[in-house]
Amino acid sequence: MNGAESLVRTLSACGVEVCFANPGTSEMHFVAALDRVEGMRCVLGLFEGVVTGAADGYGRVTGRPAATLLHLGPGLANGLANLHNARRAATPIVNIVGDHATYHAQYDPPLASDVIGFARPVSAWVESSLSSRTVASDAARAVQAACAPPGQIATLILPADTAWLEAEGPAAPLPTLAPAPVDQAVIERVARALKAGGKSALLMRGRALSAAALDDAGRVAAATGARLLCDTFAPALERGAGVTPVERIPYFAEQIVEFMQGFDRVILVGAKPPTAFFAYPGKPSWCLPDDCEVLHLAYPHEDGPRALASLADRVSGGAEGTKVALTLPEQPADDAKFNAYTIGAVIGRHLPEGAIISDDGATSSAQVLAGTATSPRHLHLALTGGAIGQGLPVALGASVAAPGRKVVCLTGDGSAMYTPQALWSFAREQCDVTVVVFANRAYKILGVELGRVGVGDPGPKAQAMLSLRDPEIGWVSMAEGMGVEASRASSVRQFTDQFADAMAKRGPRLIEVVIG
Amino acid sequence: MNGAESLVRTLSACGVEVCFANPGTSEMHFVAALDRVEGMRCVLGLFEGVVTGAADGYGRVTGRPAATLLHLGPGLANGLANLHNARRAATPIVNIVGDHATYHAQYDPPLASDVIGFARPVSAWVESSLSSRTVASDAARAVQAACAPPGQIATLILPADTAWLEAEGPAAPLPTLAPAPVDQAVIERVARALKAGGKSALLMRGRALSAAALDDAGRVAAATGARLLCDTFAPALERGAGVTPVERIPYFAEQIVEFMQGFDRVILVGAKPPTAFFAYPGKPSWCLPDDCEVLHLAYPHEDGPRALASLADRVSGGAEGTKVALTLPEQPADDAKFNAYTIGAVIGRHLPEGAIISDDGATSSAQVLAGTATSPRHLHLALTGGAIGQGLPVALGASVAAPGRKVVCLTGDGSAMYTPQALWSFAREQCDVTVVVFANRAYKILGVELGRVGVGDPGPKAQAMLSLRDPEIGWVSMAEGMGVEASRASSVRQFTDQFADAMAKRGPRLIEVVIG
Repeated sequence: MNGAESLVRTLSACGVEVCFANPGTSEMHFVAALDRVEGMRCVLGLFEGVVTGAADGYGRVTGRPAATLLHLGPGLANGLANLHNARRAATPIVNIVGDHATYHAQYDPPLASDVIGFARPVSAWVESSLSSRTVASDAARAVQAACAPPGQIATLILPADTAWLEAEGPAAPLPTLAPAPVDQAVIERVARALKAGGKSALLMRGRALSAAALDDAGRVAAATGARLLCDTFAPALERGAGVTPVERIPYFAEQIVEFMQGFDRVILVGAKPPTAFFAYPGKPSWCLPDDCEVLHLAYPHEDGPRALASLADRVSGGAEGTKVALTLPEQPADDAKFNAYTIGAVIGRHLPEGAIISDDGATSSAQVLAGTATSPRHLHLALTGGAIGQGLPVALGASVAAPGRKVVCLTGDGSAMYTPQALWSFAREQCDVTVVVFANRAYKILGVELGRVGVGDPGPKAQAMLSLRDPEIGWVSMAEGMGVEASRASSVRQFTDQFADAMAKRGPRLIEVVIG
Repeated sequence: MNGAESLVRTLSACGVEVCFANPGTSEMHFVAALDRVEGMRCVLGLFEGVVTGAADGYGRVTGRPAATLLHLGPGLANGLANLHNARRAATPIVNIVGDHATYHAQYDPPLASDVIGFARPVSAWVESSLSSRTVASDAARAVQAACAPPGQIATLILPADTAWLEAEGPAAPLPTLAPAPVDQAVIERVARALKAGGKSALLMRGRALSAAALDDAGRVAAATGARLLCDTFAPALERGAGVTPVERIPYFAEQIVEFMQGFDRVILVGAKPPTAFFAYPGKPSWCLPDDCEVLHLAYPHEDGPRALASLADRVSGGAEGTKVALTLPEQPADDAKFNAYTIGAVIGRHLPEGAIISDDGATSSAQVLAGTATSPRHLHLALTGGAIGQGLPVALGASVAAPGRKVVCLTGDGSAMYTPQALWSFAREQCDVTVVVFANRAYKILGVELGRVGVGDPGPKAQAMLSLRDPEIGWVSMAEGMGVEASRASSVRQFTDQFADAMAKRGPRLIEVVIG
């Protein structure tokens, strides 16, 4: 057995079942080993940002790491933006990055680069195997590192000779850490604070946004009047009918300031205090009132769900929270304005139970969130790190993780152009994904931001930098070019027909919605 | 004047005339300043790998740096693979990377990352401006660093507040270093070695591959019998009719070993000794004969062309080298096999004088190089760092640099899928670029490499990782979706008609050639 096979067998033994891959010469032994190991599915992406974003989506849905397979430093580099997003989502991922043979690097061949340097900004754990004999145990440690709560990125660099030379065999899985328990004294302190009066918020993130944990949070809210909040960009949120509802903190700094006004304390459960996404001249970065107390019920690496349950037991006195009742939004009239609100209502009417929304919709997201708030129960995956181009790849990974669930990908036309190659993987894997491209023909958010950062009257050069006209992107052609059935909708009627049809069928589908 | 305007004015004063950009919120003041400064053209790319690859193409054609404008760490990260290629090409580039306001980073907002960490592996010079008052002088130093011979990458990080706060004004350009002169003693030593008998090669790279320098090399060759060589992947090579011909070192290690057999000495002019691109089990990394002497006439930062001229004056005794005579290849018969050889012959017949070939054609490149060897004089830009996805972006930059010259981009279907967004920029800028996509529906090189690294009988999972079928990519649809006229050719006749038509017209055009 060579090093590569010992690696694949170890990953498999450690519970890694899927490898998203864009391999090259130095990864050929890994690729060959895939056929000798049962239970490792390999999904090809034609660009590495697709590969890493898919691993993020897979990890958010399953809670377990997928592997990626990347080709030397530049291959890793192409995947870094979505690894940045995954790091912000605290998604467990194991990157396998092929590299030159250990003895070959001294010649500084064209593809040689500082792979560790590329990996470090996104990786909690980075190592380069030195021998085919250690590859297996290195892989076991990489999986262990990726699974450290709340989830993190481990990057194992695999020099080509450590893949092809003889190895001992696979390594046994290593124990993984459970989330650290929260001390009872902390729970007592939070309970006392909640009962001290004043206006409180529970700001939750990570596993605390699962339906079960939210129910416990709902018991706390029912008993204490605390409001339940989540970040604008929560990695994964269960929502819809039957789930305890959470309020999403708005995006812009001044909106956050207004939203948080009057709160006497914010209790963090796996979250950080709300701050502005960007700084703006004369606007605050810190968005809480000056006298607002910040308490940690659970840090991200701690067991937030169990802490919420304990807190609820301690304070609720049997009170139960309210759950969302199923209420489909009204169908907009055929002649209603065709915009993100009416599109959101249509999506809300047709979203099936158990759907997964991968949301890279930028200026159109909030309206769809409004439209789907009381739809059947579903999972929402937000853009966590601000690096657009996440939506399509995360949808790929989510669909591979949960092939029985419909995935709806919301994406801006600007965002979708960063990683359009994901469409090809949808077609190859016959993923049950419906993509809604909000084609406003602009980096619309930047038009808003231009004013907010204090640019008064942008000239033609500046305006050209924000426009996606000239030429307009034909998303139907793009999708068809990659084997995905596609259509264009310019009215409520058209979109309703197309979206309903897409929800009724299985398989990849793209709808370009032409909005103002 | 704010920091951003002082920066744009400084770049312009330093001779930077083009900025390839994919901006976001933190770059809005830079974008706004573009309209207040004459003489700075700004070209939008919809993905950062397009932006950085275009800067590489621009720099290779002009010898001067373009700027890039990138959005924080993830924006830079998306551009790193083509910056890796640019670093291998020794192309001067000035990256401007927006970042969070200096006081905002402490809150660790979603887009915060280790921007310097991302930049370091590809950048010879990295700095983050600390104040709007230093941005201008920082920019002048960045340009100076980028222009240091033979050319390198300088990355200036621009926190948002240093862009919007008040600045003094632009900074004056700083002196740039000329390539270091080669000591006469070195030239003497090389001259003596050449006259000592045995078989010599001059291996050239960088400015030594310009037509004028090649003529000097030709004089040396005529007088001494030395062979003239260049790397498999030379950043920029002038070739074709009227130019002194150079032999290209083949790609695979064992081919290099055979090619270099019998040489007693290799004289390097801005190049490194030839080594294998990848290591393979049981094959050599070092490809020169054991007893082959390696002499440096000029290191990459030294003045190779002048050293060649001095050497020629010293040894040639008035001998003149031979130049390539214009000889168009024969038109293949209509029923000839449609493959890279016959396509290369057709390209060779129709390539206009002064064309620029951006070559990311992988397994099809060598055949087109054969077909164009005696075509009218042109410039060939190779994939320098092995990170595929360079061809289309480099073609964009080359066309912006030389709008009067026809650019022909050769790309594999696998390669083109890494940065297809460049097609949109061709359409917006109405670049005179003809793209030939070699659609062999595979990562064909990997099929070759799989055997070479010792994998005997690949299974279905491995084969699926190398296949671009299921689905086939429709390049005509893809191109039309991005506003580029496109057609498909499956025979010599079709390709001849389409390519001749493309050469006769101006503007962006794509031809998908369907080959086995």
